[in-house]
Amino acid sequence: MKIVIDAMGADKAPGVEVEGAIQAIQEFGYDLILVGDQAKVEAELAKHNFKSDKLSVVHASEVIEMHDPAAISVRRKRDSSSVVGMDLLKKGKADAFVSAGNTGAVVCAATLSLRLLPGIERPGIAIRIPVLTGTSMIMDVGANIDPKPMHMLQYGIMADAYCKYILNKEKPTIGLLNVGEEESKGTEFIKDSHTLLSESKLNFIGNVEGRDIYSGKADVILCDGFVGNVILKVSESVIDTLMLLLKREIKSNFIATLGAVLASPAFNELKKKMDYSEYGGAPLLGVDGRCVICHGSSSAKAIKNAVKFAGESIKQDVNKHIVEELESY
Amino acid sequence: MKIVIDAMGADKAPGVEVEGAIQAIQEFGYDLILVGDQAKVEAELAKHNFKSDKLSVVHASEVIEMHDPAAISVRRKRDSSSVVGMDLLKKGKADAFVSAGNTGAVVCAATLSLRLLPGIERPGIAIRIPVLTGTSMIMDVGANIDPKPMHMLQYGIMADAYCKYILNKEKPTIGLLNVGEEESKGTEFIKDSHTLLSESKLNFIGNVEGRDIYSGKADVILCDGFVGNVILKVSESVIDTLMLLLKREIKSNFIATLGAVLASPAFNELKKKMDYSEYGGAPLLGVDGRCVICHGSSSAKAIKNAVKFAGESIKQDVNKHIVEELESY
Repeated sequence: MKIVIDAMGADKAPGVEVEGAIQAIQEFGYDLILVGDQAKVEAELAKHNFKSDKLSVVHASEVIEMHDPAAISVRRKRDSSSVVGMDLLKKGKADAFVSAGNTGAVVCAATLSLRLLPGIERPGIAIRIPVLTGTSMIMDVGANIDPKPMHMLQYGIMADAYCKYILNKEKPTIGLLNVGEEESKGTEFIKDSHTLLSESKLNFIGNVEGRDIYSGKADVILCDGFVGNVILKVSESVIDTLMLLLKREIKSNFIATLGAVLASPAFNELKKKMDYSEYGGAPLLGVDGRCVICHGSSSAKAIKNAVKFAGESIKQDVNKHIVEELESY
Repeated sequence: MKIVIDAMGADKAPGVEVEGAIQAIQEFGYDLILVGDQAKVEAELAKHNFKSDKLSVVHASEVIEMHDPAAISVRRKRDSSSVVGMDLLKKGKADAFVSAGNTGAVVCAATLSLRLLPGIERPGIAIRIPVLTGTSMIMDVGANIDPKPMHMLQYGIMADAYCKYILNKEKPTIGLLNVGEEESKGTEFIKDSHTLLSESKLNFIGNVEGRDIYSGKADVILCDGFVGNVILKVSESVIDTLMLLLKREIKSNFIATLGAVLASPAFNELKKKMDYSEYGGAPLLGVDGRCVICHGSSSAKAIKNAVKFAGESIKQDVNKHIVEELESY
């Protein structure tokens, strides 16, 4: 079992990737390949004085930056860490690929290199989120910012398979994110997606609203990648802002400060539950291979957990189940 | 100064509207008109044993429900509280209109009755939100779920005027909500909106992301009404979920419970800051009249604060400033 890591993806690359990789080898014993600027990666490895036959480095001379247009840069920067890493996966030299790089570029490289599963027109990122009742999924959170209704149906089928076979939910409920519960609400894109989902075999519960996401009303929330991206970033921002404001309020009051110290184990437990870095990465579903997409601002811990998640994905082989589901349509 | 209230709009109508109206008369001394089912409104008034020459009731036999399609119901339900209330405003019998009803229908009724300001093609809802640095605005949050780039420019101009003349910000920063900061990111709609805003006289700071909203990076965040609706509802949901989870964690630990009691003044202060009902309603900008849109789940307090806000809007006369700004283009 071999996992390839794009070492140049994160905002703090390659430091967090190298540190995350070292932690993953120590904790899980996976074989890892770091792809990126060899000199920079080895300089980071030297900092940790780490050597292991479980880790190899493959040189890639280019980097796709966050501001690079996705499709063009994947075609032009053939020696970038994302493209070289994906090619290792394609050639069977690795079983999964992890990247915190330019999401659009990783999605594009995966689509071109690995190809799509039969019946899938566009891949999508499915992310697990903590909700009041346990865990739900949002799909898509940024692979496809301008999807067609047919893509939403395909996302529904893939997320359904993921929930059934990986999260062990028996009859996952599928909701379509909209501005209201009523069928008459929404754009033409939403109304057409609603029709397709209603006519499918999925356990489609209709429209859900932004307020329903964290209550756990649906096991899967379907939305376009633009809206999904906004949901994730706004959620993080609200949590960070609340914590900052609360700290400010507490600091201005001595008794409250004492109270906060006493209540801190509860805060820490909550923080852990809401911390995306505990979850690591999110699977890119729809490509014929295993791709894990990480947050650009990933920490070493987030990379380590993404590698752990990639290892689990190899064992679970969700694509087999997705293909079976698709064939039944 | 007379304000008309749609008494049949909120989820808990007409109870919250009647109670909110009574509170507003007692606190601010405004003259109010409640429009709705006379028998039901008077039954609510009787509960409070309230009589005042500052309050009158105008009967409307119909109600536009949340599931009614907006444009059709405004044309068909001519005797609905939203349409009758808007007509009172149009005929000059009131100076502002407040409603917690079907947003699409209120927007449609306002557009048909009051007409649009010269140069405006679609009205939009501009909401003030508490951010780390003070107050920002999001526009649009639900009037126009499928806007054109030109509407975004018009929203920018209106929100800019609102910030300058009502919130007294000297050179408001205007941001466009996108999935990344880079100009190359986003849908064609976003890219075209970006171009129009860049070429305008506005203090346009480019793309902002979901994570920037509550940090106060921009005084105005422009987005389509679908995304704006999702932002508001997700934000509320995250806050509610965090508070619930925190309560659960705290209850499971005696010391943490003691701590939480001591820290409760800080919690309450924070809750007040984040509580939308303190803000009341949001102005519908772009129509030739003063319309305040409230949350469907408004409490009596939220209605009272929306009436207070409507009273302030009458004094401020933001439309005069918007028209002047538009003329300079």
